[in-house]
Amino acid sequence: MSSEGAAALPRYQQLAEELAALMASGALRPGDRLPSVRQTQRARRCSAATVFQAYYLLESRGLIRAAPRSGYFVAPPPSQAPTRSTPRPEPGPVEVSELVFQLLGSSGPAIHAPFGSAFPSAALFPLEKLRRALVAGSRKMSAEQLTADLPAGHEELRRQIALRYLRLGLAITPDEIVLTHGALEALNLSLQLLTRPGDAVLVESPGFYAALQAIERLGLRAIEIPTDAREGADLQALAILLERQQPRACWLMSSWQNPLGSLMPADKKRALLALLARHGVPLIEDDVYAELHFGAQPAPPVKAFEARTTGAAVLHCGSFSKCLAPGYRVGWVAAGRLAPALQRLKLSNSLGGSWPAQAALAEYLQAGGFDLHLRGLRRALQRQRDAMLDGIARHFPAGTRMTRPEGGYFVWLELPPGGDSLALHGQALAEGISLAPGPMFSARREFGRCLRLNYGHRWTPALQAALARLGSLAAAQCKA
Amino acid sequence: MSSEGAAALPRYQQLAEELAALMASGALRPGDRLPSVRQTQRARRCSAATVFQAYYLLESRGLIRAAPRSGYFVAPPPSQAPTRSTPRPEPGPVEVSELVFQLLGSSGPAIHAPFGSAFPSAALFPLEKLRRALVAGSRKMSAEQLTADLPAGHEELRRQIALRYLRLGLAITPDEIVLTHGALEALNLSLQLLTRPGDAVLVESPGFYAALQAIERLGLRAIEIPTDAREGADLQALAILLERQQPRACWLMSSWQNPLGSLMPADKKRALLALLARHGVPLIEDDVYAELHFGAQPAPPVKAFEARTTGAAVLHCGSFSKCLAPGYRVGWVAAGRLAPALQRLKLSNSLGGSWPAQAALAEYLQAGGFDLHLRGLRRALQRQRDAMLDGIARHFPAGTRMTRPEGGYFVWLELPPGGDSLALHGQALAEGISLAPGPMFSARREFGRCLRLNYGHRWTPALQAALARLGSLAAAQCKA
Repeated sequence: MSSEGAAALPRYQQLAEELAALMASGALRPGDRLPSVRQTQRARRCSAATVFQAYYLLESRGLIRAAPRSGYFVAPPPSQAPTRSTPRPEPGPVEVSELVFQLLGSSGPAIHAPFGSAFPSAALFPLEKLRRALVAGSRKMSAEQLTADLPAGHEELRRQIALRYLRLGLAITPDEIVLTHGALEALNLSLQLLTRPGDAVLVESPGFYAALQAIERLGLRAIEIPTDAREGADLQALAILLERQQPRACWLMSSWQNPLGSLMPADKKRALLALLARHGVPLIEDDVYAELHFGAQPAPPVKAFEARTTGAAVLHCGSFSKCLAPGYRVGWVAAGRLAPALQRLKLSNSLGGSWPAQAALAEYLQAGGFDLHLRGLRRALQRQRDAMLDGIARHFPAGTRMTRPEGGYFVWLELPPGGDSLALHGQALAEGISLAPGPMFSARREFGRCLRLNYGHRWTPALQAALARLGSLAAAQCKA
Repeated sequence: MSSEGAAALPRYQQLAEELAALMASGALRPGDRLPSVRQTQRARRCSAATVFQAYYLLESRGLIRAAPRSGYFVAPPPSQAPTRSTPRPEPGPVEVSELVFQLLGSSGPAIHAPFGSAFPSAALFPLEKLRRALVAGSRKMSAEQLTADLPAGHEELRRQIALRYLRLGLAITPDEIVLTHGALEALNLSLQLLTRPGDAVLVESPGFYAALQAIERLGLRAIEIPTDAREGADLQALAILLERQQPRACWLMSSWQNPLGSLMPADKKRALLALLARHGVPLIEDDVYAELHFGAQPAPPVKAFEARTTGAAVLHCGSFSKCLAPGYRVGWVAAGRLAPALQRLKLSNSLGGSWPAQAALAEYLQAGGFDLHLRGLRRALQRQRDAMLDGIARHFPAGTRMTRPEGGYFVWLELPPGGDSLALHGQALAEGISLAPGPMFSARREFGRCLRLNYGHRWTPALQAALARLGSLAAAQCKA
């Protein structure tokens, strides 16, 4: 009977259609594993080639995805990216710091599902190798170095960072690199260097809350740039803002933006820099997720397009906290011609870096193995991203939009009407589940229906269950 | 003949007078070793008791001093303390940062006599024991701790710091302690917490240059308190300043002040706090030299007199950089009821502390041995102070005034008319000798005839020669 009508279709296509129908009906849901090729071959009494062809077809339609050495899985429905932001075009004071502190400090039962965390799980890091590097590095610390080299920071570490820039095609000397206590100090010092109280600063909307807090604390005003969840800051809007306002600096993340995970294409990065240069506005480029790209090649930072001879200044801020050594608190600014001035500011703020951590990192980088670690870390994050996106597609209310980042460890969700991420935060926290509500990422506490989830932790049935629970809490909001 | 007139004097007194005359004539000079008791006994054919009595008499007059297990040495002439400062009573902007950076960054041949250094020699520190503590501490770092405990800082380290306060009689809980990247971050955060741009802050004159730089950078104004080289800030003057100005905070060092080395007596500390409390002015107490007392007992900080129930807030800033672990960059603020607010500021400024350094210090303190190390360090510094004061008395121009600190590792000199410490800095630097010129320590670049010398390095013939050279350069200025 059904074999009659289906006879017109090749065998593999017939199989593909049947599976697609199961997905459409909800019998097969995102994240479900398809039967293996061998199982299907036996069950359907067809050739392995037929099954492969069917699976290729489904994969090409984006309905399933292959996971190396694990098989085929049902993919989430085509990603509905969150709506592009439409912040108010005039500069304004930032009033989010208190909320951020409240949220960061909110307590409940022990968090067992840290979706709100800012860090990936430290279990993904080569802690034992780092420890050995710490021991080896400490043997080389001379008594003189401990105080004499304090202001400029560990020389070999700055050289190792310069070497990594070189591999990206950037010629940066160790002297241009100012070591800081994590990227957060780098960002704070850069903002202090470029601005005076009352100045306006361009930021993305949504943007990293610590940058907003820094702007608030320094008495600056924020101008928010509409930002696309896939390609980052909107340059047309930026051009208008640059014409009409008088920003003193622009702060943004051009790769794996926090919280969107957006990646600005290389051409757009070049255009961004040209635009800023035309207005003489320096860029603070927060690039702390640079190493966490899922594609084979790293994304060049905006800094890569900086012409040494022109006026465009890029303060490129990096860190080892997200890719190698959480808790060591070692970051830096590649500050170009502004390095001496930034160095002075660093000296006034906290003198120099902590020698044990710097020596450990220098030793680890010299020994090699960083790239091997990074490859494993990227694969793990990518797998975890897939698992989380599957879970969201499965458990969150229909109409939920989400990003599908190609790097980093954050996904940004927009709940359907009725969703309220601050209320969801409270409910989830009471059950040991954390999340980062959207208003944390906005100067004016917008994005009430959005939230950021961290997929930086090893995916377990417990996390899966927590995500399902979060989805059902969100669904209840949207029904009410 | 002379025996006739001298016969009226007892033998020991006669001996003492002869030695005193040799000192007065310059035949015996400060730092010269006296013949041993046995040598003198033989040479003079008298009893050991006679020699001892003579030496006791000279010591009681301040003409010689005993060095345990080394013998007796000619003491410098009675210490002429530098003149008390008389800063202008009205608040004003600070304009010293550029000068400080120039001086800190000035280059010349390799410095072989680091009298301008801000640190004691790292050779005086238990670096190998610290290294072992680093290794042991790193074994205990759990993956979770590396990120989860970041904001509050290493718990065991805070507990160990609280235990040290307890030994001073101060009941401070680990929760009141905010760990910072050295005392410099502690100071910066404290100033940021208590002030807004334009506010006036009370500081000592002369005072630590980094505090003046922080005031300048934060857009504050400084009110300088006249400060005595022996007993610190003048409370009568302070009372008038508190009446007439509206300071938002007071920053000072009540023990082994930098650069004076002054120690405020305990009663005066209590009175200071009462005075500040009456005007509702909080105190930032920079107490980084607390452990470096030469007397048997530590000096209680002003914080010790803080009543928990009253409004007087003392932010007590400490550090391990000067007494145990230079280059590790671990300091703290005991901030009492202001701790939560300060913790937030710390979070915004640089997130948390560096784990390897914190873990190493926690391990070192737990293992014991810190007090043993401190006893040795204090003895070494005291010996080096004596050597330096002897050298100054011997080689610097007549009329040079100097402090005789009972703790820390700085001596403050006031050259006679004609002296110019900035010019001296340039001349000395060209010969590989550094010093810290007086104008670094003043909001308005005063103290042009003063300089700070560091005696924190092992005393060697080379240092002795460098000090002599410095003295002759100064003498040439004063003759000209």
